[in-house]
Amino acid sequence: MDSTSPVIYVVEPYGGSIRRHNPALPLIFWDDAAVTRGDGVFETLLIRDGHPANLRRHMERFQASARLLDLREPSADDWIDATRQAVEEWTARTGEDAKCVWTYTRGRESTGIPSAWITLSPINERVLRQRESGVSVMTSPRGFTIDTSLPGVDEATEGGSPEPAPWLTVGAKTLNYAANMAALRHARSRGFDDVIYIDPGTGRVLEGATSTVIAVRKERKLRTPVPGGEVLPGTTQAALFEYAERQGWRCRAKDMTVERLLDAESVWLVSSVRVATRVTAIDGHPLPAPANEAEVRELINAALGAE
Amino acid sequence: MDSTSPVIYVVEPYGGSIRRHNPALPLIFWDDAAVTRGDGVFETLLIRDGHPANLRRHMERFQASARLLDLREPSADDWIDATRQAVEEWTARTGEDAKCVWTYTRGRESTGIPSAWITLSPINERVLRQRESGVSVMTSPRGFTIDTSLPGVDEATEGGSPEPAPWLTVGAKTLNYAANMAALRHARSRGFDDVIYIDPGTGRVLEGATSTVIAVRKERKLRTPVPGGEVLPGTTQAALFEYAERQGWRCRAKDMTVERLLDAESVWLVSSVRVATRVTAIDGHPLPAPANEAEVRELINAALGAE
Repeated sequence: MDSTSPVIYVVEPYGGSIRRHNPALPLIFWDDAAVTRGDGVFETLLIRDGHPANLRRHMERFQASARLLDLREPSADDWIDATRQAVEEWTARTGEDAKCVWTYTRGRESTGIPSAWITLSPINERVLRQRESGVSVMTSPRGFTIDTSLPGVDEATEGGSPEPAPWLTVGAKTLNYAANMAALRHARSRGFDDVIYIDPGTGRVLEGATSTVIAVRKERKLRTPVPGGEVLPGTTQAALFEYAERQGWRCRAKDMTVERLLDAESVWLVSSVRVATRVTAIDGHPLPAPANEAEVRELINAALGAE
Repeated sequence: MDSTSPVIYVVEPYGGSIRRHNPALPLIFWDDAAVTRGDGVFETLLIRDGHPANLRRHMERFQASARLLDLREPSADDWIDATRQAVEEWTARTGEDAKCVWTYTRGRESTGIPSAWITLSPINERVLRQRESGVSVMTSPRGFTIDTSLPGVDEATEGGSPEPAPWLTVGAKTLNYAANMAALRHARSRGFDDVIYIDPGTGRVLEGATSTVIAVRKERKLRTPVPGGEVLPGTTQAALFEYAERQGWRCRAKDMTVERLLDAESVWLVSSVRVATRVTAIDGHPLPAPANEAEVRELINAALGAE
């Protein structure tokens, strides 16, 4: 068992008993909806210094995603217990930070019982490198538009409604990530590190392929595109805004164009495991490092441990 | 091994060697892109009288889907050989028709080698029942609009371009089917059997949640919504139109409204395993059985064996 081998715990979805799974063996059956349809939800958490960061917000979004897919709501206590046990094993073995993924699927067609598991694995080298060096991004239309006038979508994307969106799973963090991955591959093939989606009609900035966009403006202001519709509410952004407000920053969700990114003091992509990566260029226009780069980075890091 | 137990063959994607997999054991590893992102493609085929129906069109779409996802093109010979072997085993054991699924994923993150497998399993009872009794459908907007003005999308949805659509996987039959499944659950919770998507702006009929819409009009005419964009080109529809033309029907892809469905002689949802299911009502408006119901059904059945 080398130090890069993952820790896997299978969670019994009703009852919460857990069992360790040998990562050298297959885990998922041929007829699991995760595999046949991408029909499930997930959360990715950072394990830092032996603890899951931003745990409450991840749990809230995980439960909201499950409700949106009409899956029985996962028990926070059971998942947190199982995560703690997995983290303990991981930390004892490696002493390293980790990427933790919770997965909860509609389960096997032949049994109708949801499948659920937790994995802990090393943080990707590229992620660690990009935390230091930043990322060069390209902007791109997403290629589809979500009709937010439909009933259910508005509530759904706030994450607060107990009603599932009737026919969409907008606002849920589902396993349907193939288009995002295709966008990243495309960006990399063109020499960029990442993608920021924009709305082609309005020029409005939406989100990164797997991250939330933050603009730092003069006089300690933080801005992020208004979540909802095509912008998944970000757990890292939420933690950052709550914490930064207490530190005297003025934080607001506000729609913006690419031009407003280019004239910001700095632009960041934030997400759970990568935490904060500074955008060094957008479509080839350089964004030089700001004087307060270290301060902003420290702010985001501190926010994740603040709850 | 009872008669409902599936047959599973794992296909070695480069080289084509195959091995039988015990369906009582898990098949897929924790870090397979099929599970973590729905990042893969599939085809569902009908096995009828010991043979895969409409094989060439499924293979063409499977290869086109793989190209769109920037996966190495699957070898037709290897997949057809493996399918024949699996069908032989299935037919010897059960003597029944079957649902065959080809799955091809980006594979394990830790190895970077694609995963591929074939499953054969019994045809769902509900499918068999609906072939006889028909389905009552509700219409619904899909909830998102695909921007077909983007470069790559037009070609992609024709299935004929060797270039991947740069950021979307429109036109590929990917594992990202959660929204379709959610739409079906919603329809069933409201007492319907299925969904036909319409474009809310124009009222244009798009497709079923997992099927292609066919309208039969007077004087032996067949109509289907123009494929491309939000309408996946249907293999069953393509086989039907080619065969029916030879039998003297006049077949055309032509956009239509729900009103044009309601004044058709009959409306059908066609797909690989279900073959042909007549729509008995749309949003509560009944569509009585036409005089030529048996003839149309026979036409569709015959088309699938015609190549």
